[in-house]
Amino acid sequence: MNAETVKLARKRAAEMCRRAGIALTPAEEAAMEVADFGLGKIDRYGFEIVVYVHTARTCAKEIILFPRQTCPEHRHPFVEASNPGKEETFRCRWGEVYLYVSGPPPAANPKAVVPLGDENFFTVWHEVVLRPGDQFTLPPDSLHWFQAGDEGAILSEFSSTSTDENDVWTNPAIRRAPVID
Amino acid sequence: MNAETVKLARKRAAEMCRRAGIALTPAEEAAMEVADFGLGKIDRYGFEIVVYVHTARTCAKEIILFPRQTCPEHRHPFVEASNPGKEETFRCRWGEVYLYVSGPPPAANPKAVVPLGDENFFTVWHEVVLRPGDQFTLPPDSLHWFQAGDEGAILSEFSSTSTDENDVWTNPAIRRAPVID
Repeated sequence: MNAETVKLARKRAAEMCRRAGIALTPAEEAAMEVADFGLGKIDRYGFEIVVYVHTARTCAKEIILFPRQTCPEHRHPFVEASNPGKEETFRCRWGEVYLYVSGPPPAANPKAVVPLGDENFFTVWHEVVLRPGDQFTLPPDSLHWFQAGDEGAILSEFSSTSTDENDVWTNPAIRRAPVID
Repeated sequence: MNAETVKLARKRAAEMCRRAGIALTPAEEAAMEVADFGLGKIDRYGFEIVVYVHTARTCAKEIILFPRQTCPEHRHPFVEASNPGKEETFRCRWGEVYLYVSGPPPAANPKAVVPLGDENFFTVWHEVVLRPGDQFTLPPDSLHWFQAGDEGAILSEFSSTSTDENDVWTNPAIRRAPVID
């Protein structure tokens, strides 16, 4: 990503928060994380994140998704005795999110649309639709991915401590830490 | 408290959430915790809580405060090795909150108003004013209390696991678990 992409994404995500009635400080807007997972298609794969708190015990974030923006499939494995994998809850604050986890039944007509050619990187298909007020808790090490609906979405994430560097992504091309030219 | 008080408090708090753009499900509204700390003066001492998630590792809630409603002074002590006391972050979503913690300087003209006769139950006076987008993180075992401003307030609480039964309150008359006639 170049710096201009990051700047525009932050501005757009902050505007979505304002529309949703979610107050951010100027410092939070300026420090917002913009991730494209190293895939270079941020409108398709990516998210924008405001980290509210992140300690050795707990973590809370706001995740902003542009229309149809997708967080690719991944899981949070066991790290050590004090962190047996990240346990996370997604709560929809605004918009609509299609969350996919393992388990039957797979969605017959999934609401999410996977980019042509990337089908192999999406292996779990049990669909959970999250609208404002809906939430879902994932135990550690659960494969999952999600995509916003046509208006985009905002999710609160409440979790145990987050160690992104340990995440396992189904698409081997993914690089979680953003690289800005 | 009688059941009617609880019902009215839930209705009023849910209406505040709607005004603030915070979506709750009907089940969340129906299960909302209404606490008066056993003091029988819910307009003065109390809060309304929607627990989003509460596991052995993490906890997230929405705390709704009516105008000038006060959460009395307390702390979250060491419980055991796996829970060295609750660590919590309060993030203001709507309204204004006056949070008091220990440490200099004490507020010369505090914004909160303590009910006459209860002065001895408020011993920490370093003032933190939280407006929408502002937040404050408390380490375990820190004495603290807070009061909403004249319009009321909504706070998100992000924390490690919560064990209310271990909390230590400065006012010995307080009973944390609500009793409903």
